[in-house]
Formats: sequence, structure tokens, C-alpha cells
Amino acid sequence: MKKLINAAADVVAESVAGFAAANERIVRISADPLFVTRADSPVAGKVAVLSGGGSGHEPMPVGFVGYGMLDAGVPGPVFTSPSPDPIVAATRAIDSGAGVIYLILNYTGDILNFEIAAELAEMEGIEVASVVVNDDVAVEDSTFTAGRRGVAGTVLVSKIAGAAAERGDTLEEVALIAQRVVHHVRTMGVALSASVVPHVGKPSFELDENELEIGIGIHGEPGRYRAAMMSADQVADHLLDAVVQDLKIATGERALLFVNGLGGTPESELHIVYGRARARLEEAGVEVIRSLVGNFVTSLEMRGCSITVLRLDDEMTELWDAPVDTARLRWEM
Amino acid sequence: MKKLINAAADVVAESVAGFAAANERIVRISADPLFVTRADSPVAGKVAVLSGGGSGHEPMPVGFVGYGMLDAGVPGPVFTSPSPDPIVAATRAIDSGAGVIYLILNYTGDILNFEIAAELAEMEGIEVASVVVNDDVAVEDSTFTAGRRGVAGTVLVSKIAGAAAERGDTLEEVALIAQRVVHHVRTMGVALSASVVPHVGKPSFELDENELEIGIGIHGEPGRYRAAMMSADQVADHLLDAVVQDLKIATGERALLFVNGLGGTPESELHIVYGRARARLEEAGVEVIRSLVGNFVTSLEMRGCSITVLRLDDEMTELWDAPVDTARLRWEM
Repeated sequence: MKKLINAAADVVAESVAGFAAANERIVRISADPLFVTRADSPVAGKVAVLSGGGSGHEPMPVGFVGYGMLDAGVPGPVFTSPSPDPIVAATRAIDSGAGVIYLILNYTGDILNFEIAAELAEMEGIEVASVVVNDDVAVEDSTFTAGRRGVAGTVLVSKIAGAAAERGDTLEEVALIAQRVVHHVRTMGVALSASVVPHVGKPSFELDENELEIGIGIHGEPGRYRAAMMSADQVADHLLDAVVQDLKIATGERALLFVNGLGGTPESELHIVYGRARARLEEAGVEVIRSLVGNFVTSLEMRGCSITVLRLDDEMTELWDAPVDTARLRWEM
Repeated sequence: MKKLINAAADVVAESVAGFAAANERIVRISADPLFVTRADSPVAGKVAVLSGGGSGHEPMPVGFVGYGMLDAGVPGPVFTSPSPDPIVAATRAIDSGAGVIYLILNYTGDILNFEIAAELAEMEGIEVASVVVNDDVAVEDSTFTAGRRGVAGTVLVSKIAGAAAERGDTLEEVALIAQRVVHHVRTMGVALSASVVPHVGKPSFELDENELEIGIGIHGEPGRYRAAMMSADQVADHLLDAVVQDLKIATGERALLFVNGLGGTPESELHIVYGRARARLEEAGVEVIRSLVGNFVTSLEMRGCSITVLRLDDEMTELWDAPVDTARLRWEM
């Protein structure tokens, strides 16, 4: 597959460097080891929030580094966890003495490397807490995961935890609210086509021209089943029903509805899926009081989307609305 | 090609309805005739800014409706100009008595329909001014265009004209600054793959697996030439050189550099292109003081991107930085 890249081995370094140059008001880059921090790191007295994982999911994580969200984003090689080294270096760069929370997507490699990094950082006297995001309801255990995969819900966890840190919560308090978001968020995705990892050069799986995969992972891991192509409304129903059933969200509750593009799907299609999911939630008596639609946690150029529902309470809503100033989410500074 | 749609005939209506539902804080929708306005339209005493054109370029135009940018977005059928009827209805809905400016992309159908709409609106006593955006340096005259095509530069024209209207400029003054942006902005694009119009169902053109089209239009119109696949740096050089040569931007001048994704290209690739274009501009002594990278003017799921350079002066920079509150651009409210 044709790609706008130079050497496959340089994709991540060049891309993150370009990102940092385009957003120099907001972020600062360390090229080796590779990580991105807020331009004003470390922020005195504030708990620092760090997230990361394999590259290929842009704008996550670097697009969410900035005031009110992440203090650092640590991008690994494409679809591969960053090693402990850049995680520890980023931890050092953002800790102000108030401690650092790691927001980790639930993949075995990430869990391992972030654990090692936490131990190393603690040996240097930095307090570290970890919260694991595992919002994908599609399958239990997967190609790279024990338990459920962490996917688009990470954006919501990062925004809300980041706002809690910004208002002055302690490390323990930030971890508690992050854990609460994890507890109340669920996601399921669908793929219409596979992505191509640059150094592999061929699709990570094959789908027929009349086929889609319900429950896809963001690295192309198998979902629940393959089905013949169906309408956007039917796709939305499959995804939303699985999410709602698992979340057990019910009449009278409030929600944030998030339709995330996987990279290669036009925004117009995401809005069609959103419209259907929104109508179905409202039919079920769920009040959708916040929304997000767009490409936030992608899988390179994969075509498809995911639906995420977060059960909101007053505090989570307030933290979602709090000011944020990152490359991809920016409001009310 | 598989798409997340229902009936092809309903794509635009369903998508815009979903968009409006997801952004109800910011916009209001008229379903028939179809257009989107600011939720607080008309804004007393303010010149109103209207843009529109064929659908398939999302988030343009509806994603730019809101405080500090567009008062109305009028989306036509996919890749087809809206008829005068919704343009006039939207004009009526947003005019506060201070007049309405149309920001029109230079396609023959759009020019004609916006002209008719302006005449009809003026017969109702609404003052209308029009500015035509024609930033694509690739070719003179094209499939649907006399002169140069209007492409990604429209976002910059809309942002700056919208900020001028917001600060209280008269209709004539808003038209002058919009015209000044048009005078100083240039774009050129590249396609790695074609998009598929939903009711057509097949790619609008064919490219070999080892081929790209330099100078592509946002409806798949032919560019300058087809070339064998090349590196991201080489692509960036081809596009940037054409833009710089036409704009005649020189050492000591300041610029906004905008890398726009055409819909199906991962953000990581856009940042690689940005990094190269930025370095080349700086080598040429041009100071890049503002940047924008992402999917803003798309061509459905086309893979590829465009590079836009806007020569900035103090006033344009100030208007670019002014508060904006739309679905896609939102800062400093």
C-alpha cells in the first residue's frame, strides 16, 4: 500500500517531530528517548498524567498532551509498546514531586513495560500510580491482551483524569476518578478494511469486498464475528447494543456518546452512525448530554469506527467540560 | 467500496442531522431546505458569514459554523453545488441587517448558484457581498472550474473573515480582508487513491499501486501529472515548491503552514509531510509562525494531502488567533 512516508524505520520519529514542530506552543519533544511533554513541564505541585502505547493510533497519545489533559505522551514503535526507558525519562521530566499517574491501555506488552518503568521511577523516589483502561467489550482475551483491550475510551479517561489533576487532586484522588471512568465506559468497534503497518507492508488481515468485522481491535485483532456488509444503522445497532448491554446503562441515566473513526472513514459516515446511536439511546431513555465525533484513536488508515458510551455523573461532566489546551482537544482556556 | 451509510440518497441529510445532534450547543439545523446556522443566529448588528458547496469535504463547511467563523454552512449533494434555494433560506436566517458575505469555492456550479442566491436575497433587501476562493495552484481551468479551483485555503479565509465580522467590521471591510487572504494563500494537493461517491459506487479515477497524482482536485479532478510513487519528502517538495513559486513568498516573510488531509490518510503521515515542508520553508528564510495539520477539507476517503501556505501580516495573525467556537476549530472563548 502506498504511504506518505520516507524509510519505514523513520516513520514514528519523523511524524512525532513534525507534530512537535506544528504544536511548539503546546508541547516539547525529546527525540531520544522519544516522548512529548507539555511545554511548561513540570507543573509545580500538580500530579502529572502520562499515557502512551504503540504508535499508529494518532492523535493518541501526543495530540492530547497539554493543559488539562496529559503531561506526557510516550509513543512506541507502530503497534508496539514503548520500552521502559522512554517511559521513565518522561516520568522524570514531568514529575513535580506530586507523583505521576500512568494511564495504560490493556495490552500485555504495555502492562509489562509500564510496570517496569514504574518500579524504576519509584527507585528514583518518584511516586507512581497506574490505571489500566480496558473498555473494549468485544472479546475477553485477545491477540496481545489478557482480559479486555483498551481502546477509544482512553481519550475520556485521559481528559477527565487530566482535569482532576489540573484542579489540584492528589495522586490517589486522580487515580480514583480515572478508575471510576474506566468502570463506567464501554466501547465496541467495526472494521471495513485493514490497516497496513509500514514495516510490514501488507494488510494485517483480509476482508472480502462484502464483509465487515464486528468487534475489531485497534491493531486488527479479531472481533466477535465477520458479517456480510450491512447498513450504517445496522452496524450502529450491533455496536451500541453490545455496549449498552455490558454497561447496563438504563432509563434516566446520562451519557457521553463518542463515535470514533479508525482513520480511513469519512467524517460524514461517523455522523450517520452517531445519529443512529443517539436516537437508540434516547429511545432507551438515556439522556445524551455530551458528545464527541471524529478520529481520536485510530488504527492507521483502517476504515471503520467504534462507539463508546460513558455513564456520566455531575463530577465527571464538570471535569469533561473543564478547560483543555492540546493539539486535538482545545476549549475554554 | 464498502461505506458506513444507509441509502445513498440519504447520506447528506442523515450525516448533517447527526452532526447537528452531536453539536447542538453550537449549531441549529434546517432540514428542508438543508443548512446549518449558529445556534444564536442572527447575531444582532454583526455581518453574517456564509459558506457552502458540495458535500463530501467534511468537516467543511458545517464543522466551521459557530462563534468567530461561519454563521451558516450550506452543504449541497455530494460533490454538487447546493441550489440557490437553501442558500437564500440560510441567508435570511442569519442576516441581522448588517449584510451577508458569501465565501464561495471557485467551481462553475457554485459561482452560478451563489450568484442567483445573492440576487434573490438582494430583492428581499438583504445586502450580499461575495468573495471567491481560488487557492489551488495546480492548474488553470479544470473539470468543473474556469480559472483556479478553491480548496483547503477556504478554511483560512473563513476563519479570518469570521473573526473580522465578529470584531464588528462592516460588510465591505469583511469582504476586503477575505479578499486579502485569498490574495495571499496558495495550495497544492496529491492523491494516492481516489474517493468513491456514494451514489456512483466506483472510484472517480484509477491510480496504479505505484502511482500518485500531483496537483489533484478535491473532487478527483486531474492534477498536473502522474508520477511513480515517491517518498513523503519528495512529495512535500513537489507541492511546496509549486506553492512557494506561485505565492512568491520570500526570505523574512511570515507564514501559516497548513497540511490538510484528504480523508483517508493517517495523521502521522500528515505530520511527516508537515515536518519536511516546515524545514524547507525555514531554509528559504520564511518564518512559520502559525500551523494547522489535520483533516479539514476532505474528499471523502481519498488518500493524500495538500499543502497550503498563507503569507501572514499582523492583522491576519491577530484574526487567526481570535476566539473561535465551532465543532472543528475551538479555542480561547
